[in-house]
Amino acid sequence: MYVVFVYDVAADRTRKLLKLGRRYLIHVQNSVLEGEITEGDLAQFEAEVDALLEPGESAIIYKFASETYVNRSTFGDDPAADAKFL
Amino acid sequence: MYVVFVYDVAADRTRKLLKLGRRYLIHVQNSVLEGEITEGDLAQFEAEVDALLEPGESAIIYKFASETYVNRSTFGDDPAADAKFL
Repeated sequence: MYVVFVYDVAADRTRKLLKLGRRYLIHVQNSVLEGEITEGDLAQFEAEVDALLEPGESAIIYKFASETYVNRSTFGDDPAADAKFL
Repeated sequence: MYVVFVYDVAADRTRKLLKLGRRYLIHVQNSVLEGEITEGDLAQFEAEVDALLEPGESAIIYKFASETYVNRSTFGDDPAADAKFL
């Protein structure tokens, strides 16, 4: 399965979400990660996201049977230039 | 066609990207919009995104043949509660 994970949390907590996200996915843009993931890992990841979020914060996981369904265009700086991120 | 649009721009410019995005899509989370769009509108939208971005900024458009390919789970606050956003 292929997923795209986006999150909106307090500025001082983005590092926490990113740290969690990077255990499963690839950081492609500020507050956006994506990658292949097993059903088991996804269930674990979702439970951890749920537990980590605080009131006023939100996250969305978009799920696709495989990356072949995900056609993307990038604009501006290469968002995957990891060195730029927290 | 169904798209998910994510962007990472300077804090004082998010309003500009959001304003552009809302002309075509629905705001679902901070810096995330999604929705149905025609090929023609998508080409126009992509050109406007390209023109609007400044150095150091980036955007990604994920494209799907239709919304049926997009399976999503939301966590935390309802990210689509529009009133919360800029």
